[in-house]
Amino acid sequence: MSNSKSQTDRRDFLTTSLAAGVAGVAMVAGSGNLQAAEKKKHYSLIQPGSTILFQGDSITDAGRDKSAKAEATPNMQPGFGRGYAWMAAASMLVGRHGKDLTIYNRGISGHKVPDLAKRWKKDCIDLKPDVLSILIGVNDIWHKFAGKYDGTVETYETGYRKLLQDTKAALPNVKLVICEPFVLKCGAVDDKWFPVFDGYRAVAKKMAEEQKAVFVPFQSMFDEAINYAPPKHWAGDGVHPTPFGAALMASAWSKAVNHVS
Amino acid sequence: MSNSKSQTDRRDFLTTSLAAGVAGVAMVAGSGNLQAAEKKKHYSLIQPGSTILFQGDSITDAGRDKSAKAEATPNMQPGFGRGYAWMAAASMLVGRHGKDLTIYNRGISGHKVPDLAKRWKKDCIDLKPDVLSILIGVNDIWHKFAGKYDGTVETYETGYRKLLQDTKAALPNVKLVICEPFVLKCGAVDDKWFPVFDGYRAVAKKMAEEQKAVFVPFQSMFDEAINYAPPKHWAGDGVHPTPFGAALMASAWSKAVNHVS
Repeated sequence: MSNSKSQTDRRDFLTTSLAAGVAGVAMVAGSGNLQAAEKKKHYSLIQPGSTILFQGDSITDAGRDKSAKAEATPNMQPGFGRGYAWMAAASMLVGRHGKDLTIYNRGISGHKVPDLAKRWKKDCIDLKPDVLSILIGVNDIWHKFAGKYDGTVETYETGYRKLLQDTKAALPNVKLVICEPFVLKCGAVDDKWFPVFDGYRAVAKKMAEEQKAVFVPFQSMFDEAINYAPPKHWAGDGVHPTPFGAALMASAWSKAVNHVS
Repeated sequence: MSNSKSQTDRRDFLTTSLAAGVAGVAMVAGSGNLQAAEKKKHYSLIQPGSTILFQGDSITDAGRDKSAKAEATPNMQPGFGRGYAWMAAASMLVGRHGKDLTIYNRGISGHKVPDLAKRWKKDCIDLKPDVLSILIGVNDIWHKFAGKYDGTVETYETGYRKLLQDTKAALPNVKLVICEPFVLKCGAVDDKWFPVFDGYRAVAKKMAEEQKAVFVPFQSMFDEAINYAPPKHWAGDGVHPTPFGAALMASAWSKAVNHVS
């Protein structure tokens, strides 16, 4: 999926990025002793009363009911579909936080960064999330391969950065979770995706670094997962996760937002 | 699924049981100061190099490949099937622990406590697990309803206790994870299951208490989960989890063994 140098770079980055995020938390807390150091290690982005929003494309959408009624009903399965966002939401809802959480899914199948931008006020800003998780990028490259879109990796970077800057301007306290775009090498994903796809992943990583966001390394995760089951076990067409891929994503997402190492 | 008193009892127990387990850990560590208290809160049963064994019935089996070759190959998906044990294993393997872990699944469809006892040397003791997770009980009641078995809740308790005592005698350092048997009220599960099923759950809870085991409250979890999606979303026949039920179980199992609150 990537050469070993970029793997190493990514892992180094992850360590640095998470450390930077944690340092940010410690600064806010205004403490620097060992006890605070212990505490910050276990800081969770999810707090009682949090509003959490999942945003993205078909991987996040996962067949959710997009009727006005379902969209107006947070926390319930029909509005979540059957993917990682629902599995992560169910784990949060059933866990310690219970009914104090308000969780939405607004992923829409086929969407790219410019599509998010067009519906961002209604589908993000107006929902006033405390925690915003974004997984976007696979269509920004896939639709280009299919001749349906002429954006490049530079378009992706410029658009993604503006989206995040606009979000921070409107919601200064929002906690960002940026998910790494990923593919499995099977189904629709063949050699032509590489190394160009690595450029999109690097942009997502850069966005997380710039925004001091929590970064969820889905590609690194799946690169490791194929040691235990073949690519099609995790995503039949290489892009859309099976329930096993989705469960693994939900687990990684939860660990990342809860800073569980 | 249960009256509110037994719910309260169970929750009180959970708090007590986990605290007792944690206190046990602190005693082993031989420290009693605040720093140790911080550490014990985040103690994980899963350590680098751990051998982990999932035991149980069809819910654990989940269609695993039971060939000699698959059973001799820990960590790989074919030997795990498609249930909570695989999802929990995948999360551990792909996470921080990586290849230092050795994880087996030896669940067998249809099994009850006496069936486990018959194959315990080969399918548990000889594998020398550091962490042993058991989910057993639903067939101990279901097969009785079906007229295929005449054991009672007392048979379940006596057999389960002996199984655990024999295990501790053979593997004095094994860390036990006892999972609460559960049903969803749909499919094959109707009113005749209650309140008798609550008695089996109470036995599992008692076993965890007696052995200072980590207890995974699957029934409490599903009792909460039906607030967000109907019973059949989690287990179509009321007994065997869907991928969504399995993912929720894997998440709860991971939180319990990692003492993440």
